[in-house]
Amino acid sequence: MITHYSSTDLDDHFHDECGLCGVWNQSEASNYVYLGLHALQHRGQESAGIVSWGRGEQHGGAGSLFHHRAMGHVNEIFTQPVLEELPGSGAIGHVRYSTAGESHLKNAQPFVVDYHSGQLAVAHNGNLVNAKTVRKELELKGSLFRSTSDTEVILHLVSRSREKTTEDRIIDAMSRLEGAYSLLFLEPGRMIALRDPHGVRPLCFGKVGESWVVASESTSLSLLGGTLIRDVEPGEMLIFDTDHSEPRSLQVFPKQGNGHCIFEHVYFAKPDSVIDGHTVYESRRRMGMQLARESGVPADVVIPVPDSGVPASIGFAEEAGLMFQMGMVRSHYIGRTFIEPSQRVRNFGVKLKLLPVKDVIQGKRVVVIDDSIVRGTTSKKIVDMVWAAGATEVHMRISSPPTVSPCYYGIDTPRQQELLANRFSIDEIREYIGATSLAYLSLEGMIQSIGIDGKEFCHACFSGNYPIDVTDLEYSDDPQLSIFSALNNTK
Amino acid sequence: MITHYSSTDLDDHFHDECGLCGVWNQSEASNYVYLGLHALQHRGQESAGIVSWGRGEQHGGAGSLFHHRAMGHVNEIFTQPVLEELPGSGAIGHVRYSTAGESHLKNAQPFVVDYHSGQLAVAHNGNLVNAKTVRKELELKGSLFRSTSDTEVILHLVSRSREKTTEDRIIDAMSRLEGAYSLLFLEPGRMIALRDPHGVRPLCFGKVGESWVVASESTSLSLLGGTLIRDVEPGEMLIFDTDHSEPRSLQVFPKQGNGHCIFEHVYFAKPDSVIDGHTVYESRRRMGMQLARESGVPADVVIPVPDSGVPASIGFAEEAGLMFQMGMVRSHYIGRTFIEPSQRVRNFGVKLKLLPVKDVIQGKRVVVIDDSIVRGTTSKKIVDMVWAAGATEVHMRISSPPTVSPCYYGIDTPRQQELLANRFSIDEIREYIGATSLAYLSLEGMIQSIGIDGKEFCHACFSGNYPIDVTDLEYSDDPQLSIFSALNNTK
Amino acid sequence: MITHYSSTDLDDHFHDECGLCGVWNQSEASNYVYLGLHALQHRGQESAGIVSWGRGEQHGGAGSLFHHRAMGHVNEIFTQPVLEELPGSGAIGHVRYSTAGESHLKNAQPFVVDYHSGQLAVAHNGNLVNAKTVRKELELKGSLFRSTSDTEVILHLVSRSREKTTEDRIIDAMSRLEGAYSLLFLEPGRMIALRDPHGVRPLCFGKVGESWVVASESTSLSLLGGTLIRDVEPGEMLIFDTDHSEPRSLQVFPKQGNGHCIFEHVYFAKPDSVIDGHTVYESRRRMGMQLARESGVPADVVIPVPDSGVPASIGFAEEAGLMFQMGMVRSHYIGRTFIEPSQRVRNFGVKLKLLPVKDVIQGKRVVVIDDSIVRGTTSKKIVDMVWAAGATEVHMRISSPPTVSPCYYGIDTPRQQELLANRFSIDEIREYIGATSLAYLSLEGMIQSIGIDGKEFCHACFSGNYPIDVTDLEYSDDPQLSIFSALNNTK
Amino acid sequence: MITHYSSTDLDDHFHDECGLCGVWNQSEASNYVYLGLHALQHRGQESAGIVSWGRGEQHGGAGSLFHHRAMGHVNEIFTQPVLEELPGSGAIGHVRYSTAGESHLKNAQPFVVDYHSGQLAVAHNGNLVNAKTVRKELELKGSLFRSTSDTEVILHLVSRSREKTTEDRIIDAMSRLEGAYSLLFLEPGRMIALRDPHGVRPLCFGKVGESWVVASESTSLSLLGGTLIRDVEPGEMLIFDTDHSEPRSLQVFPKQGNGHCIFEHVYFAKPDSVIDGHTVYESRRRMGMQLARESGVPADVVIPVPDSGVPASIGFAEEAGLMFQMGMVRSHYIGRTFIEPSQRVRNFGVKLKLLPVKDVIQGKRVVVIDDSIVRGTTSKKIVDMVWAAGATEVHMRISSPPTVSPCYYGIDTPRQQELLANRFSIDEIREYIGATSLAYLSLEGMIQSIGIDGKEFCHACFSGNYPIDVTDLEYSDDPQLSIFSALNNTK
Repeated sequence: MITHYSSTDLDDHFHDECGLCGVWNQSEASNYVYLGLHALQHRGQESAGIVSWGRGEQHGGAGSLFHHRAMGHVNEIFTQPVLEELPGSGAIGHVRYSTAGESHLKNAQPFVVDYHSGQLAVAHNGNLVNAKTVRKELELKGSLFRSTSDTEVILHLVSRSREKTTEDRIIDAMSRLEGAYSLLFLEPGRMIALRDPHGVRPLCFGKVGESWVVASESTSLSLLGGTLIRDVEPGEMLIFDTDHSEPRSLQVFPKQGNGHCIFEHVYFAKPDSVIDGHTVYESRRRMGMQLARESGVPADVVIPVPDSGVPASIGFAEEAGLMFQMGMVRSHYIGRTFIEPSQRVRNFGVKLKLLPVKDVIQGKRVVVIDDSIVRGTTSKKIVDMVWAAGATEVHMRISSPPTVSPCYYGIDTPRQQELLANRFSIDEIREYIGATSLAYLSLEGMIQSIGIDGKEFCHACFSGNYPIDVTDLEYSDDPQLSIFSALNNTK
Repeated sequence: MITHYSSTDLDDHFHDECGLCGVWNQSEASNYVYLGLHALQHRGQESAGIVSWGRGEQHGGAGSLFHHRAMGHVNEIFTQPVLEELPGSGAIGHVRYSTAGESHLKNAQPFVVDYHSGQLAVAHNGNLVNAKTVRKELELKGSLFRSTSDTEVILHLVSRSREKTTEDRIIDAMSRLEGAYSLLFLEPGRMIALRDPHGVRPLCFGKVGESWVVASESTSLSLLGGTLIRDVEPGEMLIFDTDHSEPRSLQVFPKQGNGHCIFEHVYFAKPDSVIDGHTVYESRRRMGMQLARESGVPADVVIPVPDSGVPASIGFAEEAGLMFQMGMVRSHYIGRTFIEPSQRVRNFGVKLKLLPVKDVIQGKRVVVIDDSIVRGTTSKKIVDMVWAAGATEVHMRISSPPTVSPCYYGIDTPRQQELLANRFSIDEIREYIGATSLAYLSLEGMIQSIGIDGKEFCHACFSGNYPIDVTDLEYSDDPQLSIFSALNNTK
Repeated sequence: MITHYSSTDLDDHFHDECGLCGVWNQSEASNYVYLGLHALQHRGQESAGIVSWGRGEQHGGAGSLFHHRAMGHVNEIFTQPVLEELPGSGAIGHVRYSTAGESHLKNAQPFVVDYHSGQLAVAHNGNLVNAKTVRKELELKGSLFRSTSDTEVILHLVSRSREKTTEDRIIDAMSRLEGAYSLLFLEPGRMIALRDPHGVRPLCFGKVGESWVVASESTSLSLLGGTLIRDVEPGEMLIFDTDHSEPRSLQVFPKQGNGHCIFEHVYFAKPDSVIDGHTVYESRRRMGMQLARESGVPADVVIPVPDSGVPASIGFAEEAGLMFQMGMVRSHYIGRTFIEPSQRVRNFGVKLKLLPVKDVIQGKRVVVIDDSIVRGTTSKKIVDMVWAAGATEVHMRISSPPTVSPCYYGIDTPRQQELLANRFSIDEIREYIGATSLAYLSLEGMIQSIGIDGKEFCHACFSGNYPIDVTDLEYSDDPQLSIFSALNNTK
Repeated sequence: MITHYSSTDLDDHFHDECGLCGVWNQSEASNYVYLGLHALQHRGQESAGIVSWGRGEQHGGAGSLFHHRAMGHVNEIFTQPVLEELPGSGAIGHVRYSTAGESHLKNAQPFVVDYHSGQLAVAHNGNLVNAKTVRKELELKGSLFRSTSDTEVILHLVSRSREKTTEDRIIDAMSRLEGAYSLLFLEPGRMIALRDPHGVRPLCFGKVGESWVVASESTSLSLLGGTLIRDVEPGEMLIFDTDHSEPRSLQVFPKQGNGHCIFEHVYFAKPDSVIDGHTVYESRRRMGMQLARESGVPADVVIPVPDSGVPASIGFAEEAGLMFQMGMVRSHYIGRTFIEPSQRVRNFGVKLKLLPVKDVIQGKRVVVIDDSIVRGTTSKKIVDMVWAAGATEVHMRISSPPTVSPCYYGIDTPRQQELLANRFSIDEIREYIGATSLAYLSLEGMIQSIGIDGKEFCHACFSGNYPIDVTDLEYSDDPQLSIFSALNNTK
């Protein structure tokens, strides 16, 4: 196992989880993107933005891009008057979550720039692992940077490319960059989608009537009443323009497809989404069933940590022949734990978010199902709460393996020293959280539950095996990083 | 069955659902009330207020009341700086929901007034049924009114009472008023709780360390880490003051106890709350079991309309031996359907709130469990969504009887003509919503599931039998109201 | 000299300066009131409110009152969307300034209440001197108070009056109250103006086309392009209703007319206003001329403290045959000194507000003209600034007599101990502010300059002679107040 | 006369008037800049920004730049909490006014970027006349633009320069650019000021204790209690760094000094400022005296259009031996006419801003003094108002020559067709505004009044003689522009 240094230690800038939605050939494109982003709100709650392409009288010829970005939730930002300022038949949007220090508007996407060929907007989900290196080179050539986001590097490379078309300039730019990227570009007359060759972050597309929708998850299509066609393939570019009624597909980079993020299936994606051909809810339910097979225990009731633990709990109870009950009630007026920026809020959130149903728990042997243990503080509080409600035994079951390594490809994970599983044995963790017993799902069991060949996944957060080298780290002066880099190279 | 005219037709003013929390003998009383109100946020999301009693240097003697009220959610309104302006060891708070036209700050509670004996604050959950009549009388005597709320009448009566103590003035005032009321009063040095003799709206109390907490539901005590002692009895007054370490209990009105709102158990209260000695979650689960016994149907899967339908679904699946699955996923970034003010938002809310998990539904005979059908528009959209997700049969099961009559005691119900069950047969409703079959839980079955003698309940919304006469209606000139009044009198 | 205790010592509540505007028979009444209040913004910058009377379809018969009040400036509060919510052909408005502790929205006017005869709104400029006494009596009869304003007492008395018409109820109410009051009432179908028998605060009326306008100062009429008819007479009531094209005038109280506030002429009113038949600008210019006659001095240039000192400076220079120059430049982005609530802001304001024009001052013997010295801190800073700009002599001339006593009739004056002239001789003040010489205008000279019989004025702030007894003070337990009261009685 | 096409026709982007303030060697640098900008608020009211250089523990070595920009007034934007986030001993700030369409935050200054040598901030007053041309070239080399401001071009050129030091890179960049620029740069450890070789926009510096202040006008120094040293010379660079206690001065471009903006003296600068060695107030007073000599007229009173016409009126009255009076009163709660973005607001502003003092005007022959006539609409309303107040004659006198040409060097002037003097004779204008007589000050008289050699001034707005060629226009396809360009080249 290699990575002893978390993303946050190394670099405050990169490492956001985000959501994308693009709509083409739809007279109310920005309204559609607004709804599509609403369905993706779980992927980023700190800022949101939409760029539309409109052709008004005042904008002859190809028309102009209109944009609005702000801090906050989609439905707070995009009121009707704001959406009316985003006219046109094509639009792309972005929701973003970032670490606390960098929740600045200047990093909110989509980015829009003017360059020699006019206006260009981009929205990015993922993280580029050589962006800092390339940024240094570009700065030496005179490029100015306005954000601390890796995404800005893409725009500079596109602008400096000598290729003739926007598509070719994008390909040229991305051939210089490595890492995880699902991208949406918008310029007057054209929308372009691109997914990295490893296929790390999800991206799919489909139709709503005659309109095309590209989104991070199929839940956006579902909300819009559309039909999922398929995932955008790793290394595939889709070009939507005014000259073609169908998108043109180009395999611009050889498909490697060895980097699909397994954590999307475990935790991040919405249960109703279909990712890599598999419904997330069903995968999670099967993880619960597998967990029951691997680590069953005599008990009276199975209760989930709502809401993310619900499908696995149902599966666990089903397989174990135990009663499933909602033993904890969730407040609906507080956001998701994982996604709030400061530790202080996370603690407060636990107290305000979950309350036990005593009748379900009192005098019972209880199995509690959660999807992961990160720092352990939340789990400890939940176990305490279950004991306090009168449980006679509290068996904690986790529907994923221990989280041991940080993610460099776009999910914000805590500092290494806060990753409990990295420092302590399972029994030490059990003791820390105060449970009668504790078991995690095996890596093999998890992969099997999803039903996709394990080689297609990135499961570095559970295994420490990184499918894409992290170039940026080699430029650090930190001696620890040199070690890391050395180790990384021998991988 | 009597009431053909909804509350909204008769009177725009009254008819809010609300939540109360009072804290006594606690140095951070307003912080505690804030947390207690957070747990009651489901009872009212339009406005919130807190009044505290503090003794600063600048306020010699008995000290002063401090107050803050605003439109919005509890955690938006009560930021730390605001709470710091609410010092003192006693505080009461209120969350409020009202119909659209009356969501004005002037009606937000608690109300605070100056009168001959100093300052007095009141927070009220419920609805007084002779408030308009008494208001007219008071106006003729020269009283000025600032709000359209029935609660203001209470303060005028207290102020005009010739009794010597605040307790006696309150008793004097409430002996003039009829209807549903759970009340909290605060004055310098004293907090008083009072529940109407019918016990319509819930009210309970308990301890957190040495502090006393009175709240609409026990979930507030649970969040604060306290212990529920018992419900405040119908007709009971509890007096908390600086001279006694325990509250004094007075049975100020003979307990009738024939009006406990059954709808709190079916829909309104939080599942973890204990009301009338019964945990709401368990009652709802048993309603689901009873529903399975009454109206079972061959099927492949049972899915709830989240979140309120979940406990009944679990019970239904358990009793019917069917698989329970979360076949619909709820967005967490939108509030509760029932509780938003405008019809427009309600419709939009349905589209943005629930998305189907196709794999769970496709090719299956599906039982969908909801707690009620009000207008039918939401149910229709849900059934459509389940069909669209590929169900082969859609069996709608409702864990309460048909809603046929409006509530006059404090829950906002739609206009009579929008109450589907009042105008159509069950089969017509089934056809309207497009389900394969439709069944409601019987009134008897529902009462049995809760496990309390049916005579203790008000189930007027299901039966049309109103335990308290509605005086105000007799003053209307509307001929329809005269008819209503006549009918009502023969009840 | 009598009053050793300032208003602020005695009572935080009362004592605001305010402005009123009412418009009748104008389809855009609230827009007119908005403009009228804009012209009166100098009379109160802390809150503003408008009440209109509209007859929509939804409000059959007499129609309803619509209202909006908020903290802030008129043009910030009354945006176009807000004004559109204030329909109707009659409207009254109010701007308000109060001492810091009581700048609460609950005290913002106009007040609107429901009582036995429907809705009633009131706006008040002035201060009632027996309001606390009457309030106590009303509280003992059961009246509830929501504000700390003396104005609320008026509404209670109107509501309790047994008279048949609104006019008579108002007369009945005001016959119980003493002090300074210019009042505007609005109810469906009627607007009523009333000025106290002493005529303390100004009130005038006029026409704009077919519409009637009542306002604190004629500047509102001027802005609206209307014609001033005359002042409302002391003790006169004007009734505007839908049955008469002209207002009806009733002399409801015998005119005493011995209380016209002289400070309106010196400082408070706008220079373009015509008050008591005299243009304020001209009176101030003549005060400057008289000051030159009384206290001329050899000098090179006369400069005003802008803007209130400008007319007197022009007069002084004219009479003395000296050069007038704008030797200090005022920043336009800061409000008026006198009218900001906190001492801290006042100090900061001086630094940010005035800057010297060195070329005008350097090497010159300078006469600086201001309208008053209150605490002396501002004057000291101004004199320092003039010295620093290179003056060889700095002669301070004040266009009013020394301010020695607080106002009880509606102008917020500083605490007695902060009134420099009350504690120090003129020469001590001169030394404190650091001027070469200092002179004030004589009381006789000031009265003469305005050109009205001195008996008609209240000049208590300069003379300590109060035309109306201050009843409220006699009820205080404060021993100092007893002394005051005794002294006051011997007056 | 050449320019028939206004700046607004040609280019929406450039053409702002702005104000700058930089402070060095002062522990509360951002507080000082805040105060300095407050004194410059008249130069730009649409947005403001401050960048500071601080060295916290978290920012080892050279420290970091901190910045805040927002739309609005200086004192609204820079509250105490905001200023506390701008630590450090060096800071630069900017206030900005722009045409309506471009009042976007993205164009608010100072701009801050990251480039190969770290962070760099810039604030700019003036307008570059070949920025569009250079921008096109830069875009072709791959530069990305985020704003529509000409200032962004400067940063790109600095970033692309191959020079070794920041100073040299700035010189390199500015040698490519032409037009009007007063610039402040800030990087960790250094503040740099630079004024263009023509000296179009003002820039001066001085000391406050041991701290250095650079500002657009000396009024900032005056507010801060500092001492003006001198203007920054045309073509001079001043470098403030941590290694030197005094700024180093470099004459980086040969001083031409033929472009000092005469309009600063006439209208834009504050009267207390000293520009080009002359106090603005005195220059304006002498313009009034000269105007009286050139165009005297028998009259009874001279009144200014406040506030900008006051000094000239005083001079006119003095020279003509006429009485000076403030015949119009200005509302203090509305901003400056010239500086508001939309025509609609400008019209409304006139109505709300000025009211006549009838007693001063009635029955008199009145001379009204204003500093300029731009569109004529305001003048017409003022003349109407004076007639309506009872004047028997209204003689309009303008203390500058007719405005016939737009400004390309940083002052926003109206479209050519709205410049009255460009289309009509003086007598036609007189008829349009409805005055008895109308006269302008001669160009020679104006120059003489200031007392500087006329060759040093740019007076293109009055004469059409542009000291700097406007390169950008030659790239337009507009045939009218070609004509313009041709004409321009023959200049």
